[in-house]
Amino acid sequence: MTVDDVTPLPASEIARWDDEADVVVAGFGIAGAAAAVEATRHGADVLVLERTGSWGGAASMAGGFIYLGGGTPIQKACGFDDSVENMMAFLNVAMGPGADEKRIADYCEGSLDHFDWLVENGVVFKPEFFGEPGWEPMGDQGLMFSGGENSYPFNTIAMPAPRGHVPQMSNKVQGESSAGYMLMKPIVETATGAGARALYDVRVQRLIVESDGRVVGVVARRYGEDVAIRARRGVVLAMGSFAYNEAMVAQYAPRIAGRPAASIEQHDGQAIRMAQALGADLAHMDATEVAIFIDPQQLVRGVLVNGRGQRYVAEDTYPGRVGQLTLYHQDNTAYLVIDGDAQEEAMASLSPQMMMRPASWVCDTVAELEAEIGLAPGSLQATVAAYNAGAANGEDPLLHKKPQWLRPIGTPVGAIDLRDSTGGFTLGGLLTSLAGEVLHVSGEPIAGLFAAGRCTAGLAAWGYASGVSLGDGSFYGRRAGRSAARA
Amino acid sequence: MTVDDVTPLPASEIARWDDEADVVVAGFGIAGAAAAVEATRHGADVLVLERTGSWGGAASMAGGFIYLGGGTPIQKACGFDDSVENMMAFLNVAMGPGADEKRIADYCEGSLDHFDWLVENGVVFKPEFFGEPGWEPMGDQGLMFSGGENSYPFNTIAMPAPRGHVPQMSNKVQGESSAGYMLMKPIVETATGAGARALYDVRVQRLIVESDGRVVGVVARRYGEDVAIRARRGVVLAMGSFAYNEAMVAQYAPRIAGRPAASIEQHDGQAIRMAQALGADLAHMDATEVAIFIDPQQLVRGVLVNGRGQRYVAEDTYPGRVGQLTLYHQDNTAYLVIDGDAQEEAMASLSPQMMMRPASWVCDTVAELEAEIGLAPGSLQATVAAYNAGAANGEDPLLHKKPQWLRPIGTPVGAIDLRDSTGGFTLGGLLTSLAGEVLHVSGEPIAGLFAAGRCTAGLAAWGYASGVSLGDGSFYGRRAGRSAARA
Repeated sequence: MTVDDVTPLPASEIARWDDEADVVVAGFGIAGAAAAVEATRHGADVLVLERTGSWGGAASMAGGFIYLGGGTPIQKACGFDDSVENMMAFLNVAMGPGADEKRIADYCEGSLDHFDWLVENGVVFKPEFFGEPGWEPMGDQGLMFSGGENSYPFNTIAMPAPRGHVPQMSNKVQGESSAGYMLMKPIVETATGAGARALYDVRVQRLIVESDGRVVGVVARRYGEDVAIRARRGVVLAMGSFAYNEAMVAQYAPRIAGRPAASIEQHDGQAIRMAQALGADLAHMDATEVAIFIDPQQLVRGVLVNGRGQRYVAEDTYPGRVGQLTLYHQDNTAYLVIDGDAQEEAMASLSPQMMMRPASWVCDTVAELEAEIGLAPGSLQATVAAYNAGAANGEDPLLHKKPQWLRPIGTPVGAIDLRDSTGGFTLGGLLTSLAGEVLHVSGEPIAGLFAAGRCTAGLAAWGYASGVSLGDGSFYGRRAGRSAARA
Repeated sequence: MTVDDVTPLPASEIARWDDEADVVVAGFGIAGAAAAVEATRHGADVLVLERTGSWGGAASMAGGFIYLGGGTPIQKACGFDDSVENMMAFLNVAMGPGADEKRIADYCEGSLDHFDWLVENGVVFKPEFFGEPGWEPMGDQGLMFSGGENSYPFNTIAMPAPRGHVPQMSNKVQGESSAGYMLMKPIVETATGAGARALYDVRVQRLIVESDGRVVGVVARRYGEDVAIRARRGVVLAMGSFAYNEAMVAQYAPRIAGRPAASIEQHDGQAIRMAQALGADLAHMDATEVAIFIDPQQLVRGVLVNGRGQRYVAEDTYPGRVGQLTLYHQDNTAYLVIDGDAQEEAMASLSPQMMMRPASWVCDTVAELEAEIGLAPGSLQATVAAYNAGAANGEDPLLHKKPQWLRPIGTPVGAIDLRDSTGGFTLGGLLTSLAGEVLHVSGEPIAGLFAAGRCTAGLAAWGYASGVSLGDGSFYGRRAGRSAARA
């Protein structure tokens, strides 16, 4: 057996089981932790196998957003109305084209219950809204717009409601803790408190199958040795994305090649490949989250143009949307035109300064700036003239940026070079039922095999909002754990 | 067994073989025909199973382009220089991002040999160049630019050489014959002349595997009955794309949903699913060819703008590129601004009038047209003003349209509504070796299983040129046939 072999192993070849449990969960990130909680609660003896030395996964390093709505107590406390239908209307457009409407409906209908589940299991959300531009709240606020819900075009499609729910950090220290950790810690403690065991430094590599095709265990690598672990009821794959598998990225999501972000090196696609070897189906393998490396406090105050000097997105929308549109539709080329006053104002904001970018060029006139950047003569001048004419009237007829951010571009005028300034992670993966069963290409579930989190295709097809991954990972992690316990 | 079941059948369950051959080829389009020729020539007894009542597939209804270069006799006779390196330089950019450089190099290096093979097998190319804008030659000319090789940006990356080789039609009658037919006929006759047998109305549905995983036959449906057909050396899948499989399109290429074109209903993805059920790997499932439904004689004479009134592509490039950029990057929204003189000139051209479009709006001024279309005030006016200023000097600094097509937009000025005016077919599929072996997700070939044509991932990732599908289908069809015969 080579390290990379993903071919399933017949159970008849297993001479000795090194360990066993009713439900074996591969991966102790958010999906695996949620699966472990629910599987134990449904009467299963649970063993979690984690490749690294500790629980957490990508989740514990993340901003911690969970996408929830439909009128959560936090939304209500902050004065926002929302409904299941309103949340669905937003997600169906924002996660598309190609988003799975049945899954979105299922997720929205279960959203309030999922909020309660998180809170019951120890996750704390502070009922305070953060309304400044930013990637995350600057303090310990628990609610934020996280997908451009209040920006064009989404504010014309559904009633704007913030749905990015952020676990509260006590004594938040920049860079030393994360809201994702504050999400993971209570869920992991709930799982282990309920009796789930965890083994660390165990890398799951192959599935073990009975002659009838049922998955009955895994082969894993621990301290250089292969161990066979039996799963009496089922295996839950929760091993993360394929963002760090170069070959898979080249085959499926080549635009993201060489620029993984908000991801961890353990995201090597192994869960996807192991299940594919059994005939598992896939979906949305080209979908990716994309970040653009600039502070939103700068974005909202500038005019963003592509390589042709044209505007293409309202600068005050979800910055991840700006990233997606830039990488995919503008050939990863953008420039943020920003004048001296706006740049100063952004720099003086309370935003963490990590993504604050200095101007790459500064000129006295837009004509000079256009020439410095190397844009076609007249292109940027026409764009800024049109923007300024609208801004003077508090209007943006082209892209509908909100009036509060409209101010004519003055002088001196600079530009921030945003070429090749994006990165992200993959969103595609195994096709699963709403119960968390891994589906074979025949359409039938593969017996004994369940999955959740970023090794599966979730809510997002082409489109994203912060909180969707921890959201569907925890939501369908619970489902997968429950289904496995009942198998 | 249900009709849609794709799960492989153990050979031990086959009571009786209804037919057998050394090599069984599923599908009698271009890839299957090429495979049949080469397999018979390499000593194999060959049986081709075709789902419809006749050979041909999508190929026989196509424009018949084969993408060939590196200095073919036709290129030389028409006065064009080309080289393997030059062809590779173009394809590496035009088929990307994510295009497989090794496959492109392999294809380019074999291109001259492949030209000879086609000619030896009876395909006739007339050594005459067609240089007018168009989707295909208007007459029986044998050579045409087919991927924007002579347009920006490709004309700055490689020396422009036309590579769309078109089989000659005798007595071409519009709509009654196709160059694709003139490609298919001699190849099919070569295959059958060499001894390949063909069965029609046979729909291949499942693979039959030995206990060691080797593919040893297929189960097919014929006149309502299942038949088992043994393949002593190998099975070659050549069953076309998944453009007509709605579920697969939704999972992998949702942008093309509801708009298949240049494809046939038999393209239901069955080959891909049968092989996936054995653990076959996939690639570039999101890639699609895209046509835009307008005559290129109109395109080159107009100014193409998106929903923001902005230009985004040189109007004189490969119209399939215009289609891809419109569907994927401009939200399938475009308007072609064209003045009265230019529209008349296009209508008077020798172009077949099938795709010639009337103006959707006609106005006296661009300002009025902008309002009629509903574009943001000033947006189209700025675009046309900039275009006209450049055109007056024979320049297009924004997009580098060729001077011969630059003429200021006059009055009356119209626009052709090109919203939702695209369609196309899928380009992704099974991952194969350069020898045509279907690769398992472990990276190893699946014993006894070969594939070519549009059920495989070929040269194109995100990008296309006419002739690439018949090109890689015939090229790797030959490889697959040879590999199967030698297995």
